[in-house]
Amino acid sequence: MKKIAVLPGDGIGPEVMAEAIKVLDAAQKKFAFELSYEFADVGGIAIDNHGEALPPATLALCENSDAILFGSVGGPKWESLPPQQQPERAALLPLRKHFDLFCNLRPARVFKSLTAACPLRPDIVGEGFDILCMRELTSDIYFGQPKGREGAGPDERAWDTMTYTRAEIERITRIAFETARIRRNKVTSVDKANVLTTMVLWREVVMEVHKEYQDVELTHIYVDNATMQLVRDPHQFDVLLCGNMFGDIISDEAAMLTGSMGLLASASLNANKFGLYEPAGGSAPDIAGQGIANPIAQILSAAMMLRYSFGLDEAAAAIDSAVESVLDKGIYTKDIAIDKSKAVGTAAMGDAIVAAL
Amino acid sequence: MKKIAVLPGDGIGPEVMAEAIKVLDAAQKKFAFELSYEFADVGGIAIDNHGEALPPATLALCENSDAILFGSVGGPKWESLPPQQQPERAALLPLRKHFDLFCNLRPARVFKSLTAACPLRPDIVGEGFDILCMRELTSDIYFGQPKGREGAGPDERAWDTMTYTRAEIERITRIAFETARIRRNKVTSVDKANVLTTMVLWREVVMEVHKEYQDVELTHIYVDNATMQLVRDPHQFDVLLCGNMFGDIISDEAAMLTGSMGLLASASLNANKFGLYEPAGGSAPDIAGQGIANPIAQILSAAMMLRYSFGLDEAAAAIDSAVESVLDKGIYTKDIAIDKSKAVGTAAMGDAIVAAL
Ligand SMILES: CC(C)[C@H](C(=O)O)[C@@H](O)C(=O)O
Ligand SMILES: CC(C)[C@H](C(=O)O)[C@@H](O)C(=O)O
Repeated sequence: MKKIAVLPGDGIGPEVMAEAIKVLDAAQKKFAFELSYEFADVGGIAIDNHGEALPPATLALCENSDAILFGSVGGPKWESLPPQQQPERAALLPLRKHFDLFCNLRPARVFKSLTAACPLRPDIVGEGFDILCMRELTSDIYFGQPKGREGAGPDERAWDTMTYTRAEIERITRIAFETARIRRNKVTSVDKANVLTTMVLWREVVMEVHKEYQDVELTHIYVDNATMQLVRDPHQFDVLLCGNMFGDIISDEAAMLTGSMGLLASASLNANKFGLYEPAGGSAPDIAGQGIANPIAQILSAAMMLRYSFGLDEAAAAIDSAVESVLDKGIYTKDIAIDKSKAVGTAAMGDAIVAAL
Repeated sequence: MKKIAVLPGDGIGPEVMAEAIKVLDAAQKKFAFELSYEFADVGGIAIDNHGEALPPATLALCENSDAILFGSVGGPKWESLPPQQQPERAALLPLRKHFDLFCNLRPARVFKSLTAACPLRPDIVGEGFDILCMRELTSDIYFGQPKGREGAGPDERAWDTMTYTRAEIERITRIAFETARIRRNKVTSVDKANVLTTMVLWREVVMEVHKEYQDVELTHIYVDNATMQLVRDPHQFDVLLCGNMFGDIISDEAAMLTGSMGLLASASLNANKFGLYEPAGGSAPDIAGQGIANPIAQILSAAMMLRYSFGLDEAAAAIDSAVESVLDKGIYTKDIAIDKSKAVGTAAMGDAIVAAL
């Protein structure tokens, strides 16, 4: 019996989470494994109910669980809070750090039937667009010390520290090469070694680790060039290996290239394969409560949980295929439907995926 | 008589520079102003001839000039140098800092006749795509202290400091609002105020300066979201205001969205309107010396020089129009031609623009 901490959060979070659980329940029956769910507040709703985005009780639940299934957080209600107290930031950063979730996986792939939704020209998107952003998630300028602010008037100054240790770079790099081996055998490491001392170390360590993975093709690319190449010819990439800051930027660009933010899942793992699984899209407060949100990203996040935290590869693959077959049948939620009048709702999409399983 | 320091650099630099000077010569006759040119080595060729990418004699020439017209630098010959000694970095960063060229302007626009070259879907690019990236260029993590590296083994650590003062943010923000007033009256400030202390100050100062420019619409966007929105709906932007690091990334993405790197000019200015003008594309060593490079980016950079450093708005506008009319006539270099067999060479493109002037 695996214990899941379910944190639906705000906006469409609770609606799409309900569908993910429906699919997990069906998968349990079919593949004979057992999950238990416990729910807790996180994000804006946690601020409202408990005065903080990540209440101690929620953190305690996560500590006593085998994985965290996370919905999405934030919305207009909390937008007037200072940027550093926004629900998303105030919930996610401490969770990542607390559980040492250093390895963030964000697959950006285009389902064949949805090629037309890509913002890129059809001849550039082509077929089988499928890249994986691997982002370091617990170091870099996000957590580097010192950060500070001092002085007043024109000389008032603020600062943050970008920093990496060799060990931090090594462990994420190793996973990137391992992952490339079961994909298309190619790693592109994103840095800015021509300007940043931290990124000189980054590049050195990546080259060093690569000596153990000579069968994997390794390329280094400056982050500015990476944003261009992603638009010009995304097919040149397989695994994109990034630090925390550049990975934040690059993975969002890659995600949007698919044109289907409602379909993108993500996993954030630690060394014990404990992980937090969440959709890459936001809480979409504008459509919350209407039953029209796309639950696929949440469902695919649940599949990633089965694969990465529990080693249930067969069940995970079955969910992936069920999603693909539903899309192939032309069953679409509003966000991805060309003819919006034929779009199905959140629950109907969940049901269709369960049926296809 | 205005003195121009001409630094053609490497790769296609010298070829396209020759065309820019041809056009400047024609403009001088037509609009009755006088320029003098003095040439110096920069980048890879300067490393070869003088042992450094920015030799003292080149810097002295720039100091005694009224503007710098820069070609492009770098190429395979120098690629084995460590990243931090690459010609581009070793030439540009000291020039920017030495002359306090804090204001970098990178217009990304799509000429009507070239809409098909854009990597985005035609319905997304639409008509009249024209945004301006304004990037702070002399502070941020590029120049912030301390930077360093220490220790050995797994604990070896490297770091860089992102930092801004209020005064540094203020001066670039002011120019962004002034510029928006003569464009579409809209500034989008790119930050990461939910994570970085430096960016909290950035946002505060931008809001503060905005009080003097209430007629200009101001939006704040997180850098990760900015990379997505640029792909999803670039028309929502007019002036994109960025710090040095995020501006490096965002301006390259915006540039590539036009699909015509050979057409993009840039200006880097200080408070006295002294400036360095350079094409946004690279030195394209693969096509250097063949007479097929597109000189338009260099020519438009020369036009920016006339406009921003010398106030010769009429001459600058005439060059811009000449370029546009040549493109409208279907005269293309190979990089932008659909039928490559009909493409004209570098010199023929320069001649056509002179003729259209
Ligand atoms: C909410 C924010 C702190 C977070 C980040 O910057 O990592 C988000 O953008 C993400 O990518 O998960
Ligand atoms: C060459 C490099 C140092 C430079 C930068 O990062 O600023 C370049 O990418 C640019 O944008 O002009």
